[in-house]
Amino acid sequence: MTYDPIDYLPYDFANRRHIGPSPAEMEDMFAVLGVDGLETLIDETVPQAIRQTEPLDFGKPLSERELMHRMRSVGAKNKVLTSLIGMGYHGTVTPPAIQRNILENPAWYTAYTPYQPEISQGRLEALLNFQTMVCDLTGLEIANASLLDEATACAEAMTMAQRVAKSKAKAFFVDENCHPQNIAVVRTRAEPLGIEVIVGSPDDLDAAAVFGALFQYPGTHGHLTDFTAHMDALHAAKAIGIVSADPMALCLLKEPGAMGADIAVGSTQRFGIPLGYGGPHAAYMACRDAYKRAMPGRIVGISIDSHGNRAYRLSLQTREQHIRREKATSNVCTAQALLAVMAGFYAVFHGPKGLRAIAQRIHRKTVRLAKGLEAAGFKIEPEAYFDTITVDVGLLQRGVLQAAVREGLNLRRVGKTKVGISLDERTRPETIEAVWRAFGLVQADDDLTPEYRMPDALIRTTEYLQHDVFHMNRAETEMMRYMRRLADRDLALDRAMIPLGSCTMKLNSAAEMMPVSWREFSQIHPYVPDDQAQGYKALIDDLNAKLCSITGYDAISMQPNSGAQGEYAGLLTIRDWQVSRGEGQRNVCLIPVNAHGTNPASAQMVGWKVVAVKCDEQGSIDLEDFRAKAEAHSDALAACMITYPSTHGVFEETVKEVCAITHEHGGQVYIDGANLNAMVGLSRPGDLGGDVSHLNLHKTFCIPHGGGGPGMGPIGVKAHLAPHLPGHPLDEDGAPPVSAAPFGSPSLLPISWAYILMMGGAGLTQATRVAILNANYIAQRLEGAYEVLYRGSQGRVAHECILDTRPFEKTAGVTVEDIAKRLMDCGFHAPTMSWPVAGTLMIEPTESETKAELDRFCDAMLAIREEIRDIEEGRSDKEMNPLKMAPHTMEDLVKDWDRPYSREQGCFPPGAFRVDKYWPPVNRVDNAWGDRHLVCTCPPMSDYAEAAE
Amino acid sequence: MTYDPIDYLPYDFANRRHIGPSPAEMEDMFAVLGVDGLETLIDETVPQAIRQTEPLDFGKPLSERELMHRMRSVGAKNKVLTSLIGMGYHGTVTPPAIQRNILENPAWYTAYTPYQPEISQGRLEALLNFQTMVCDLTGLEIANASLLDEATACAEAMTMAQRVAKSKAKAFFVDENCHPQNIAVVRTRAEPLGIEVIVGSPDDLDAAAVFGALFQYPGTHGHLTDFTAHMDALHAAKAIGIVSADPMALCLLKEPGAMGADIAVGSTQRFGIPLGYGGPHAAYMACRDAYKRAMPGRIVGISIDSHGNRAYRLSLQTREQHIRREKATSNVCTAQALLAVMAGFYAVFHGPKGLRAIAQRIHRKTVRLAKGLEAAGFKIEPEAYFDTITVDVGLLQRGVLQAAVREGLNLRRVGKTKVGISLDERTRPETIEAVWRAFGLVQADDDLTPEYRMPDALIRTTEYLQHDVFHMNRAETEMMRYMRRLADRDLALDRAMIPLGSCTMKLNSAAEMMPVSWREFSQIHPYVPDDQAQGYKALIDDLNAKLCSITGYDAISMQPNSGAQGEYAGLLTIRDWQVSRGEGQRNVCLIPVNAHGTNPASAQMVGWKVVAVKCDEQGSIDLEDFRAKAEAHSDALAACMITYPSTHGVFEETVKEVCAITHEHGGQVYIDGANLNAMVGLSRPGDLGGDVSHLNLHKTFCIPHGGGGPGMGPIGVKAHLAPHLPGHPLDEDGAPPVSAAPFGSPSLLPISWAYILMMGGAGLTQATRVAILNANYIAQRLEGAYEVLYRGSQGRVAHECILDTRPFEKTAGVTVEDIAKRLMDCGFHAPTMSWPVAGTLMIEPTESETKAELDRFCDAMLAIREEIRDIEEGRSDKEMNPLKMAPHTMEDLVKDWDRPYSREQGCFPPGAFRVDKYWPPVNRVDNAWGDRHLVCTCPPMSDYAEAAE
Repeated sequence: MTYDPIDYLPYDFANRRHIGPSPAEMEDMFAVLGVDGLETLIDETVPQAIRQTEPLDFGKPLSERELMHRMRSVGAKNKVLTSLIGMGYHGTVTPPAIQRNILENPAWYTAYTPYQPEISQGRLEALLNFQTMVCDLTGLEIANASLLDEATACAEAMTMAQRVAKSKAKAFFVDENCHPQNIAVVRTRAEPLGIEVIVGSPDDLDAAAVFGALFQYPGTHGHLTDFTAHMDALHAAKAIGIVSADPMALCLLKEPGAMGADIAVGSTQRFGIPLGYGGPHAAYMACRDAYKRAMPGRIVGISIDSHGNRAYRLSLQTREQHIRREKATSNVCTAQALLAVMAGFYAVFHGPKGLRAIAQRIHRKTVRLAKGLEAAGFKIEPEAYFDTITVDVGLLQRGVLQAAVREGLNLRRVGKTKVGISLDERTRPETIEAVWRAFGLVQADDDLTPEYRMPDALIRTTEYLQHDVFHMNRAETEMMRYMRRLADRDLALDRAMIPLGSCTMKLNSAAEMMPVSWREFSQIHPYVPDDQAQGYKALIDDLNAKLCSITGYDAISMQPNSGAQGEYAGLLTIRDWQVSRGEGQRNVCLIPVNAHGTNPASAQMVGWKVVAVKCDEQGSIDLEDFRAKAEAHSDALAACMITYPSTHGVFEETVKEVCAITHEHGGQVYIDGANLNAMVGLSRPGDLGGDVSHLNLHKTFCIPHGGGGPGMGPIGVKAHLAPHLPGHPLDEDGAPPVSAAPFGSPSLLPISWAYILMMGGAGLTQATRVAILNANYIAQRLEGAYEVLYRGSQGRVAHECILDTRPFEKTAGVTVEDIAKRLMDCGFHAPTMSWPVAGTLMIEPTESETKAELDRFCDAMLAIREEIRDIEEGRSDKEMNPLKMAPHTMEDLVKDWDRPYSREQGCFPPGAFRVDKYWPPVNRVDNAWGDRHLVCTCPPMSDYAEAAE
Repeated sequence: MTYDPIDYLPYDFANRRHIGPSPAEMEDMFAVLGVDGLETLIDETVPQAIRQTEPLDFGKPLSERELMHRMRSVGAKNKVLTSLIGMGYHGTVTPPAIQRNILENPAWYTAYTPYQPEISQGRLEALLNFQTMVCDLTGLEIANASLLDEATACAEAMTMAQRVAKSKAKAFFVDENCHPQNIAVVRTRAEPLGIEVIVGSPDDLDAAAVFGALFQYPGTHGHLTDFTAHMDALHAAKAIGIVSADPMALCLLKEPGAMGADIAVGSTQRFGIPLGYGGPHAAYMACRDAYKRAMPGRIVGISIDSHGNRAYRLSLQTREQHIRREKATSNVCTAQALLAVMAGFYAVFHGPKGLRAIAQRIHRKTVRLAKGLEAAGFKIEPEAYFDTITVDVGLLQRGVLQAAVREGLNLRRVGKTKVGISLDERTRPETIEAVWRAFGLVQADDDLTPEYRMPDALIRTTEYLQHDVFHMNRAETEMMRYMRRLADRDLALDRAMIPLGSCTMKLNSAAEMMPVSWREFSQIHPYVPDDQAQGYKALIDDLNAKLCSITGYDAISMQPNSGAQGEYAGLLTIRDWQVSRGEGQRNVCLIPVNAHGTNPASAQMVGWKVVAVKCDEQGSIDLEDFRAKAEAHSDALAACMITYPSTHGVFEETVKEVCAITHEHGGQVYIDGANLNAMVGLSRPGDLGGDVSHLNLHKTFCIPHGGGGPGMGPIGVKAHLAPHLPGHPLDEDGAPPVSAAPFGSPSLLPISWAYILMMGGAGLTQATRVAILNANYIAQRLEGAYEVLYRGSQGRVAHECILDTRPFEKTAGVTVEDIAKRLMDCGFHAPTMSWPVAGTLMIEPTESETKAELDRFCDAMLAIREEIRDIEEGRSDKEMNPLKMAPHTMEDLVKDWDRPYSREQGCFPPGAFRVDKYWPPVNRVDNAWGDRHLVCTCPPMSDYAEAAE
């Protein structure tokens, strides 16, 4: 037989699709690094002492096609019924143009948080549209660019109220008509902070006794209340009034701002965001202008660029936890950007007239439903409502609920005798008839005359969405082009490496992403009966088991919706356990000075005192200082929070000792999972001594960053902590929940599960090795041009490296920002800037980048170093040089060129593509100007002209 | 009740999403046109005499969500089994990255045919990759950019062979081992051309008796034959040898070129293109260099631009039917560009090693399957095979086939006693076991040792896919970015209007497109038992009924895969009917001189003589000339072919008379449906006197153009012709088929059906009205600046208008091409150039464009007119002016600017977006250079450098 078989595996997702460098490229990289292979490099990088003993083994990795097959069979186990449960989650129609052009478009979903505004103008505009929509609908002046979910938004509103209220009361009032999960999460948040939560009827509000009050609008059972008098009472007592409002209802009903509310929160889920078994969805928060500096989360605002042209940017960033550290009072840093973008486009797509018509139709359908039930003698409450009614069925409750399920409907069980029904824009005439049948009405007395049952006094009288963007022609052609134009303004992973240290911007493969849009995953209400979510259960159980095996923990909670929320949930778990052991007095948390800013913020949120621990010159924890502080606080030691490998990109050899010291003094060890991408398959935080870690599924496990969210920050814990993990938000006897939905944002989980299934244990481990290889390759190629700040004992970095760019400020007046902006000219997103060390760049290439892309980046960085040298050595002007003038725009090319360097040098530095050049749409953005002139809604066009002058 | 309901319909797809101008915009347009409303304009445009009497009524139009619901329920009626039927259609794995980034990406699917190369460089490169792949795999020098399907490619190869063969024989040999549909379509094509088709065993080939011979490789039942001796014999007889080859087999087996074949054809379906119940797929054709000018279809080649830089373009366009008209011998003008792009990316994605490994795995699985059957005593033929075996089961045939269906498998029924099985890259070990069970083997004697059963002499010894593009890093990150870069180079509907007269580039909405990817539509083999395709049947039946109602015909055939193929099928239908009535002598076809070039070409293909009919000054048919020619050819008159409204964009009032004259003289009337978008709901070709029309579903009914295909050209006929419509390709007793699959490219049909369901009758009619409004609005706004060549009796144009740009050549030396290229600077695709009148521009905006976009276009055109005036009046240089130098690239801006006009004027003329400017990646392409230096595969990089010098 002359036949010559080859051993190439064509469907090897792990090694050929996910991992960037090909085997041949890796050989070249080994040569550059002077190692004989990957194992040698890993041995030089990852200390033997912390290595895991057993390799990961998840059986044979799946091909993309096998994955689809597996996903389909798991998805088929979820039963897609029509859920009329309400409680803040409603059926909605995602416009297909938005689904295809945003949700399923890598240009949108692979983008990073818009911290670099010059290359993020598209999504900043989309988020500004979202904020404008929120301000308009709520009738308040300032909105942020989304929060994690409605329940956490309520909790954030409570702590914000405490910050801004002049009342010194320590209690917080919560309307008993709030959705139960909102009440539960508020309670969770209040307890460690010592806030007393008073749940009661708004009629019983004692304004003088509270610093703030939260009301639900419409109430969870459908009631509509005008809270104007309550707001007046609160204001008289110098307390803060908060309304959690359904934005769809606000299209018809009097807005919170008109009632005098100080803060409004809510969920924009029903603006086109699929249910997804609970998330991700974008919650919103709006407030009066006076309180804007106390508002958590990101706020998009308008500023100008260096030529005076309008430019969008994130405003008031100095409020954020990464700046405030120990002073932070919220750890919010992730938003739900992708979902907020979608919700904003939903409003752009429908416009005010369309939204009003949709809301009207929902209401008229609800009235029709109610009239049919009334005619049959059922008692409906409330008398006036928007989309939700409650029916007292006495002993028939169980029968009605079961009959509804047989009709393909989920209704809400309310108390022991009532049934709740919420209609939505998906409700069809057949749906209403099916509900009637569930109530035993064969032929309802159907009155089709449109009728309205909203209180006259609550009919909205103000206009909304008057900005041009909500009045553009709504033809799909126009919308599609608008979405494309915005996408094209941004630089995302679909065009270039985003080498952000600590952010792990790796491939989000198409195969991983596709199931997210499937109705078997997207159309499930978070509170459906368990038997309708068996597919999710199977997926989550298996994912949990694999994540336990990867981390060395014994149990996982999927509830946290971001890394920061994972930290918070982890600390809460520790606290709950300590309280259960009678050690509730423990309240000191040791945190090294180079920790993520969210760490101290999270510790604050559970009521702990942060004690900072020093680092040595290598950026590693100062073991003596650590020991000393642990001893000093031995009785009060609650926990330490460390990051591994360290935020300096080094595998500290002392990590086990740090853990041991903490345990010795009765504390628990929280290992921040931000850098888990350097560990998977090589080392397990649970083995090092960790008791809890959060895992950023949006970093290590391929959930895309979505331009600033969604995220998923599940926590893994050791067995002793398992009973103290966050409980189901509707289970009043469980541990305190941190999110509205029991599994956080479950519709993202197919992504991470797909990744693990297609990589297999060996593939995941190889990914870790290559992530380390790629980082070391960059460090090596930049050797001599830039100083790498921290290295391990054998001179290697972990999966990221920090370049010291501080010297250039002295030698050439060049700042780290200049380099970051200059990289845009080269077609790159800057590395992480000034964190964890001010004035430096932290580079994390991830395993998904090929050698060619790494080389393109290194070429750019080396050329930038030469440009700096030109300044140092007097060949370039100190001000008029390509670094200071960066980024360059097309406008610069059109204008007369009065610069001492050439157009060519300015616009096409090494790294930049020629034909495929990415052009930042604006020049360098002036941050301070924007903070001084805060505008965070779409202004009238005339204002733009003024700004430009 | 103070409540104020509004009457806005938020889910009105027809009026708010599909149709561009909003009601308010339309009012403004009426004012410009001086009409009081749409009906007045239509009355002035469409003669009463031709108006239809009954409005279209398809019931209530569906919302997007209702559409999805309907599609799901229809899709659910298709049963997705694993088809191992083979016959040129195989299971394949579409890489998710290709599915998401190409098939589901409007940047790729909304593009037009790359006739304007400067704004089509991305897909031209992708198609060049495809051609390179085809040349490499077949071992031939020249390949085209795809043909409609394998069967028509076989027929095209036959007629091409006849053109180039020096043999004067009139017969054509066809290997009996060809797929039956290939034989059937070759017979269809041969018969009217007087070619005798000899079907037989290759052993019996009498080379001297034929001008060419077609062989299948592997044979339809799996046989592998080395055709070298046959080729030698053919060449000795000055005849042409053709091999229809499976490209997957060619990854392992000796290539046709190495056997001496002159032409190779085949289907690239199994390179990642879903089955789709038969299409669309890209067929390929390759040939020896000597025959390149005789090759049908489009060929992408390399040329240079005005700065000497490499640029891609369509080569040898002078061969095409639109130039050759009466001399044409093929009517091919559509390719399957989108599918060819996908197949090319499949090869780029896998590379030669990957393809070889995939082919090997398929083969090894086939051997394993066969060994199991052999061990159980079954007789397998052939002895050596690639992926297909045939098993003689005697009387058990029916039982085995039925058992297979119970196992979820379709096998092929071969004769009365045999079963055929073809494996593919989707075949899993479980699939093989299920086949065994269908043969009654509970436990097959399974030998897992890899074994090869291909003849040693046929093992491929040459390399393929050696160009860099097939050796780029195959990480998904890299691939995704490559796809994005190519997409960004092109200007498609997702960025701007494409106002191509006669091409109807309207919205392809996301809702219409989504079901195309669903497995219920995509994973069905064209020859599955009818009960597995009941969803398709329901869809096609309903679509047929609606299209009949729209056109006034009585029956529809979905078989033609393009408009030109529709013409051909229509004429064949007429011819078959005439032959059946003993009027086979009729062979004269009257065609007006302004007809689509495909019309005479199609008439030639059915063996008819084309007699041209004059047009009058208004571009309308010269009725006297028509009558005179009809009379002169009365006995021989087969048909006339007319276009309505005329290709000059006018509703001729004489159309009924033309039809009557034709009928009077015993001829049939073919009404070209290219302009149906001006008629739907207003006028029906069947009522005007038409006997047959084709409908371009890719024009009027929203199938996207895909960058040059797919297309669908079904034909409607009057009742008397219905029995003569194309028959099923596997039905030997039916009427002659024109395509390999019974319904052409059925997976596209959900798009057109969705469009009709969401528009409803009133919506479709409104779309027609607005298409006419938009065209008249442009004509009005350009009044005075450009002369509109043809108008109806009341001064209105139909749905398109022709601008006379010929005068500018004399007054300013400006050609129509200069204007077309200048429009690129304004961010537009040029209108149709020099057709139907040389030196003019034909503009068709369609109903989907908003007034804002029409205005942007008009502003650009008016500014161009002023630029021409500047030349006319001596303010601009005759050569160095923005028109002659157009299009402008970014490179022009970077370089020193030595032009008499400003950078600003050059690059940002009115119409051009500022921040969102689209930049053509190359300057004006030199067409002649490319034809002189024909290169139509990816050349080595060194060649590019030379070209640039």
